[in-house]
Amino acid sequence: MNVDIGNALASVASPGVSRESLERLDDQVGDAHERIERGMADAEHGYEALNLPQRTDPTEIRAAVEPVADAETLLTIGIGGSALGAATITDALAAESDTEAIYLDNVDPAWISQLLENRSLENTAINVVSRSGTTAETLANFLVVRDAFESAGVDWTDRTIVTTGESGPLRNLSDRHDLPSLQVPDGVPGRFSALSAVGLVAAAVCEHDLEALLDGAAAEAETLSGSLFECPAYAYGATAYALDQRGAGINAMVPYAESLETYAEWFAQLWAESLGKDDLGQTPVRALGVTDQHSQLQLYRAGPRDKLVTFVSPGELADRPIPDTGVDELAYLGDSTLADLLEAEFEATEASLAAAGRPNVRVELEGVDEYELGGLLYGMEAACVLAGELYAVNTFEQPAVEWAKKATRGLLGGGDFEEADAVAEKTELRIER
Amino acid sequence: MNVDIGNALASVASPGVSRESLERLDDQVGDAHERIERGMADAEHGYEALNLPQRTDPTEIRAAVEPVADAETLLTIGIGGSALGAATITDALAAESDTEAIYLDNVDPAWISQLLENRSLENTAINVVSRSGTTAETLANFLVVRDAFESAGVDWTDRTIVTTGESGPLRNLSDRHDLPSLQVPDGVPGRFSALSAVGLVAAAVCEHDLEALLDGAAAEAETLSGSLFECPAYAYGATAYALDQRGAGINAMVPYAESLETYAEWFAQLWAESLGKDDLGQTPVRALGVTDQHSQLQLYRAGPRDKLVTFVSPGELADRPIPDTGVDELAYLGDSTLADLLEAEFEATEASLAAAGRPNVRVELEGVDEYELGGLLYGMEAACVLAGELYAVNTFEQPAVEWAKKATRGLLGGGDFEEADAVAEKTELRIER
Repeated sequence: MNVDIGNALASVASPGVSRESLERLDDQVGDAHERIERGMADAEHGYEALNLPQRTDPTEIRAAVEPVADAETLLTIGIGGSALGAATITDALAAESDTEAIYLDNVDPAWISQLLENRSLENTAINVVSRSGTTAETLANFLVVRDAFESAGVDWTDRTIVTTGESGPLRNLSDRHDLPSLQVPDGVPGRFSALSAVGLVAAAVCEHDLEALLDGAAAEAETLSGSLFECPAYAYGATAYALDQRGAGINAMVPYAESLETYAEWFAQLWAESLGKDDLGQTPVRALGVTDQHSQLQLYRAGPRDKLVTFVSPGELADRPIPDTGVDELAYLGDSTLADLLEAEFEATEASLAAAGRPNVRVELEGVDEYELGGLLYGMEAACVLAGELYAVNTFEQPAVEWAKKATRGLLGGGDFEEADAVAEKTELRIER
Repeated sequence: MNVDIGNALASVASPGVSRESLERLDDQVGDAHERIERGMADAEHGYEALNLPQRTDPTEIRAAVEPVADAETLLTIGIGGSALGAATITDALAAESDTEAIYLDNVDPAWISQLLENRSLENTAINVVSRSGTTAETLANFLVVRDAFESAGVDWTDRTIVTTGESGPLRNLSDRHDLPSLQVPDGVPGRFSALSAVGLVAAAVCEHDLEALLDGAAAEAETLSGSLFECPAYAYGATAYALDQRGAGINAMVPYAESLETYAEWFAQLWAESLGKDDLGQTPVRALGVTDQHSQLQLYRAGPRDKLVTFVSPGELADRPIPDTGVDELAYLGDSTLADLLEAEFEATEASLAAAGRPNVRVELEGVDEYELGGLLYGMEAACVLAGELYAVNTFEQPAVEWAKKATRGLLGGGDFEEADAVAEKTELRIER
């Protein structure tokens, strides 16, 4: 990816960051980069994620999925980091694959029933992903899906791939039934696992080019260096951090390609769960160009000065001409294509924020393909790790979600937890119809 | 809808609003309600939206869609308020309909091509929606779709319904071809038009109960009164406003039903475009329970104290038991259903925010059906109008989006606009791979 931070400069926007401040910040970036390099070299928890382009073996993943290579539908059962990286890749490249990739990342019973209804399960494969093998949502959904396969008379053991840790219920299950299985790599938090088996099994079933994904990531890794002015990923991370310090507590991620909508969701988890701690962290907002120009642009341009808007320009798109109308008022459309219109809207929206002094950054891809996606995912992960160093938070933990997990378990009779008791003590002030 | 603001009280959360402050704020609510009532009585621009439950004629809408009642797929071509209200309804109720409702609300050529490819256009109907009849994205998509119908040898004039204003290119087209057409009501901005033909044509084609939608909205209208303590909609609007004033500049909308995901998008437009002006307005964030517990909860619980989290509890759901595993660690799931799990996760997440002193509000539905949806849409519109009065902004305009529209037009050769010139003058600071 390339990054253009011109519209985040103090000469353009408020909040903005001056060139002098960027120079000063670059000293911190140099120190942070040393820390990151050390973490990578020592395969430390979290930092190890940045080694994945070298560590991941695409041949092993392809071999594991071979038994279900014929699948017309792939149901990936996972939640959070166990789903979003994979979904980002298969959604971005959906037009290139004959396999439909579906993600069961919620436990809504009506929705699950609808997804399973009228589906030919003989042609469906299951990809269940949970490091611990005990994630309540994932296991519940897996049990429901397994049951549906049994009811349909389809042997689920022929159609299931497991990605999990070294031990735990899913590992035991996989051993018992001799299922093809892959390992969630050590030291890699879920939200940083897109470039491991966690993110690549689905891509492999959909026959995407795993080598190109990893190569694109590796090329991005090559740019990591001690200066934000030489590394697009660090330029992004440092600029986002600097703007947050100056009042832009919100980061709206706006890709200008429908196929990158899931990428914005992946980014939102990466950014929120990594940096949202110690009362710090930018709040990610996922949006979509051009759709959200008709929804969020008014606020971005004229609301509080608390936002960085990050545009992702997808580069060249397959195109489609706009037929002529014969209507005078619309004649200007008739000479154009949909891609021209999309590009003009992107440039116009970017300029409209700059004209209103609202900071924005452009992330540029050269198309939406495996190589570029690998670079984008790796680049944003590196940006996030850098930002974590600048905030001085523990980027790779997510302690605040434990409370609700215990409360849930307690509420369902899975043990004695004081958190579950707190639920009953809710303060009420109800206004009823 | 019912609303519980207990977890937004200062005794629970920080920022929070004390009971005394709520009492004081209630005086402002009384004044604002008088203003709103006057606007409704005089059918003033914008306020007129709150009269829709009485004004909208479901019989007229059903008659208009009769020629395409057999459609297996409905392509609605519209953007922003011309799509999101309709999509909220048909997505929420998708399980009840045999007609698939698809929304063309972006101009991405690859995506459009994929949507049209392999689709049987004989069984497809078109619903094109634009008040002005000149919205660039909508007209471009309509021209592309019309062309695809012609290429497939299907007469688009037999399969198209138009919803537009009194005049303009779409009105002319509809007159020329004698298409079934409906009118975007006067005085109703797009984002407030869900309960007019704009939102209900798609619902009618999908055979949802329009009367129940309007009845639910009318019941919500009955609650509008001079006190937030007697009106759920005003309680919500006033609490969100008060929390914003106290530092919660972000409003995360989190429905706990997959079918309400689009509702969160609709809300995001309503809130952003109505209140985001004069450097004011809360930034809406769309999220989804339980999925986003594994993505955003860490930030919501431990990040900056700048958020209100709004939960939507869907009430009773169709259910599905979780089969037993035989695994000790997961035994607690085997006695439960997916709905039990969803409910426990909802209560646990709500309590986990309260335990961390983070303000949240619960909006309660009694199921996801037409009546409840009508109430939810109307309630949130009334909440937004009230908040607009409290902020003293012009709730019903969106002037900040004009700049980019002019620039787009200029860039495509549709006239001389200085905004287009500004695009070329972009400040660059590029960091390349």
